[in-house]
Amino acid sequence: MVRGSGKLGGMNATATPAYAELTRVHTRLYRYSHLSSIVGWDRNAMMPPKGNEARAAAEAELSALIHRTRTDPRLRAWIEAAEQEPLDDIARANLREIRRDWRDANALPESLVEAKTLAGARCEHAWRSQRPANDWKGFLENFREVVKLSRQEAQFLADDSGLTRYDALMDRYEPGVRAADIDSIFGDVRTWLPELITKAQAKQAGETVVAPAGPFPVSAQRALNREVMALLGFDFAAGRLDESAHPFSGGVPEDVRLTTRYSEGDFTRSLLGTIHETGHARYEQNLPRDWLGQPVAGARSFGIHESQSLSFEMQLARSRAFIGVLAPLLRKHFGDQPAFDPDNLHRLWTRVKPGLIRVDADEVTYPAHVILRYEIERPLVEGEIEPDDIPALWDEKMQALLGLDTRGNYKDGCLQDVHWTEGAFGYFPSYTLGAMYAAQWFAAMRHVTPDLDARIAAGDVAPVFEWMRDHVWSQASRWQTPELVQRASGEALNPQHFRAHLQARYL
Amino acid sequence: MVRGSGKLGGMNATATPAYAELTRVHTRLYRYSHLSSIVGWDRNAMMPPKGNEARAAAEAELSALIHRTRTDPRLRAWIEAAEQEPLDDIARANLREIRRDWRDANALPESLVEAKTLAGARCEHAWRSQRPANDWKGFLENFREVVKLSRQEAQFLADDSGLTRYDALMDRYEPGVRAADIDSIFGDVRTWLPELITKAQAKQAGETVVAPAGPFPVSAQRALNREVMALLGFDFAAGRLDESAHPFSGGVPEDVRLTTRYSEGDFTRSLLGTIHETGHARYEQNLPRDWLGQPVAGARSFGIHESQSLSFEMQLARSRAFIGVLAPLLRKHFGDQPAFDPDNLHRLWTRVKPGLIRVDADEVTYPAHVILRYEIERPLVEGEIEPDDIPALWDEKMQALLGLDTRGNYKDGCLQDVHWTEGAFGYFPSYTLGAMYAAQWFAAMRHVTPDLDARIAAGDVAPVFEWMRDHVWSQASRWQTPELVQRASGEALNPQHFRAHLQARYL
Repeated sequence: MVRGSGKLGGMNATATPAYAELTRVHTRLYRYSHLSSIVGWDRNAMMPPKGNEARAAAEAELSALIHRTRTDPRLRAWIEAAEQEPLDDIARANLREIRRDWRDANALPESLVEAKTLAGARCEHAWRSQRPANDWKGFLENFREVVKLSRQEAQFLADDSGLTRYDALMDRYEPGVRAADIDSIFGDVRTWLPELITKAQAKQAGETVVAPAGPFPVSAQRALNREVMALLGFDFAAGRLDESAHPFSGGVPEDVRLTTRYSEGDFTRSLLGTIHETGHARYEQNLPRDWLGQPVAGARSFGIHESQSLSFEMQLARSRAFIGVLAPLLRKHFGDQPAFDPDNLHRLWTRVKPGLIRVDADEVTYPAHVILRYEIERPLVEGEIEPDDIPALWDEKMQALLGLDTRGNYKDGCLQDVHWTEGAFGYFPSYTLGAMYAAQWFAAMRHVTPDLDARIAAGDVAPVFEWMRDHVWSQASRWQTPELVQRASGEALNPQHFRAHLQARYL
Repeated sequence: MVRGSGKLGGMNATATPAYAELTRVHTRLYRYSHLSSIVGWDRNAMMPPKGNEARAAAEAELSALIHRTRTDPRLRAWIEAAEQEPLDDIARANLREIRRDWRDANALPESLVEAKTLAGARCEHAWRSQRPANDWKGFLENFREVVKLSRQEAQFLADDSGLTRYDALMDRYEPGVRAADIDSIFGDVRTWLPELITKAQAKQAGETVVAPAGPFPVSAQRALNREVMALLGFDFAAGRLDESAHPFSGGVPEDVRLTTRYSEGDFTRSLLGTIHETGHARYEQNLPRDWLGQPVAGARSFGIHESQSLSFEMQLARSRAFIGVLAPLLRKHFGDQPAFDPDNLHRLWTRVKPGLIRVDADEVTYPAHVILRYEIERPLVEGEIEPDDIPALWDEKMQALLGLDTRGNYKDGCLQDVHWTEGAFGYFPSYTLGAMYAAQWFAAMRHVTPDLDARIAAGDVAPVFEWMRDHVWSQASRWQTPELVQRASGEALNPQHFRAHLQARYL
């Protein structure tokens, strides 16, 4: 195992002075980012409204400090010198991540970073009212500037890395994954997904589903969530569950802060959302402690992170086996009712229904939303299409992928997401890559543990955690994403595992 | 009014370049201290145990950064240059506070700071088990080193300021107040306090007091505390009430974080503690916003801060007038019971009983505990007595002041406080100065508002807040403590107001 096989943090300080300098800088950055994470969590989960102005000033001061540290002019020479120093494998992987972080912080001229931040903030702020007003034209005025600056940003990163523009952006979220890979993977999915959706709907058309009857008191939901988190291995001595308007997973690896939001009329959203965040949390809680504070000890990527949350939510929690474990807990906290029959809950939590809104989509239709966005944002960044072209493309793709008419409905169409408003291009693929990695992880687990579902049904989820710990959590950022996938599952990302999962569950 | 009459923050940047540099540094320090306050609050109120190590490292990194900023070698020249620049009154007061902060950070050699921190931490850590074991001899071994280093520290500060050793230490907590003042004030109190205690006890001997009968559910206590805080003007849009093992007032002026601790068997401790902390909170919430971020905008001193908490807890909340307002709230949240009769509550909350423990002392006997400590720590710092002399002096003074025998009982005697273990000498007087300032504030208020008690009894506490805002809160650190007292109340600190308050309430 990799865990414990290498030490960082200046151990070789005499032999490798440049590398030792770099680890010292990153230990400091890790501590600054700890402060940033905790006050950021506080802002979202605890801070009263009038604290906002002073908090913004304090956070900006800290961001400036972190930026100064990451752009210290001495870093370039240290990185170049360290690359000539004798380093073990872990240190070399750490140095790769250090260079990556350095490039992220130094590749762009500050004037461009500032201009893009400003344009993104303006566009996002106006979007908050333009979306409900269905005002695509108004949005376009700000959005054109965001696209222009995002292209410049992508060009700088491309010049620096030798990648294409879009690849250079995507590399920030999914290191080592290229648009050519995505084209091939999403191209495959496109050939079978629409038909699978239709078939799943047809199969479900005859099913009876009983909806749970509320109210479900917040205190009971809170207790249920905590019990399920504990069952899923969340360490409450190293983290918390709180409430916030927009649920998120924050904090630091040593102290993971999850939030959720309760509605007395519906417990499902909070429960499944909490299970989703627990997947993120366990990844963080189980990152290798030996390397902590160095980039190599951090979570690998957005897609791999999402593979954890989706492993917990989609692969595990919505499986018939695990629902059999959950049902008695629902009865314990809410009392019994017909809807809590495990087969009924399973039907309820696996309903397929094409819809306009990505964040409300089920597991089967979700990839369609992502493919659509990828197929628009890639050519947009590359300059093959313009912002004005988006609505027509959106309508056409929604029709082809989900059979839905979105013409004129911008607010539930191309205006629905926050990502583009701020120029966060290259992020969307990670959602579906995460779903596919998760399916591939569970296929690999079933290979090692053929009776996995029987064990889960009996309440024994340890095989899942053991596999994750050995193959994903402990590996942190030791490998770039494609190599991590290869090593963990024995093959490159293969969308057929995702397809097989959907077929087994929905057909 | 001072409020709004002056602006800081680089307004005169061209005319006063050195002063402008200083304000920029202090704005940055203010933001760093914001981060420090919020993560410190989080550590005490929110953090799970396994987060501690990473938090300690992050906080140490931030402390080091703050220290580097406060000891920037350019500051000395800027301060000297700024003192020659044309500045308005507020800026000049700010510059005085900037110099004060600079001296605090720079007067001591780093080796001494480190040695004292280490010795204090060792002594404090051992004290945690030595106190319950009544182990004075074991304590002495560590404590001698703490005293030695504290004397060195005091000598450095004395050499720098021209004050005596003890004055130099006390000046950090109560700027401008000297041992000669304390000698005179405490000397006066010593002449009448023991007799007043005896008389009060004699008067109360014949009284019947009904104890409230619990349990008092935590949720009801929480609701009561919040309602009382709102009544006392706490702005929940700019602060929070949470729970922690050791209640405290933290956060930042824009976002004040109070904590309390609940016991179902007793609501009084949490309620009165929360009222006490609300006094601290309102001071912070009402510091002048025009100067925010600069030292002149900060709370004046420990004693003045305590004058706010004691104004709220002792002058206001334990008065018969305000108890008449509180009683219906107790009935609302806990249901009615005989103990909630306002006269009974007043008797209950003003019981006088000499005891060994300072933190459990009532309003009347509390000053005796402080005077005793002052009379020991001043000569100890000045080198007139040695650590070995403490127990005999303690016994003698407890007998004289409170008529209690403490011989051999170190754990409830000279081992009871944490302050000395860490070498925090010069702090104790602030507690009783706070009580005296509070009495003087209310005497001044009654001069302006002769029917103050009638208005409080009618639920109108606005005159208290208006006086505080005009005379204390808005003044922040514009004046040194003695001048603030003179300007606010029209005279220097006069212990006769405190005496008159005790006589009126207890005799």
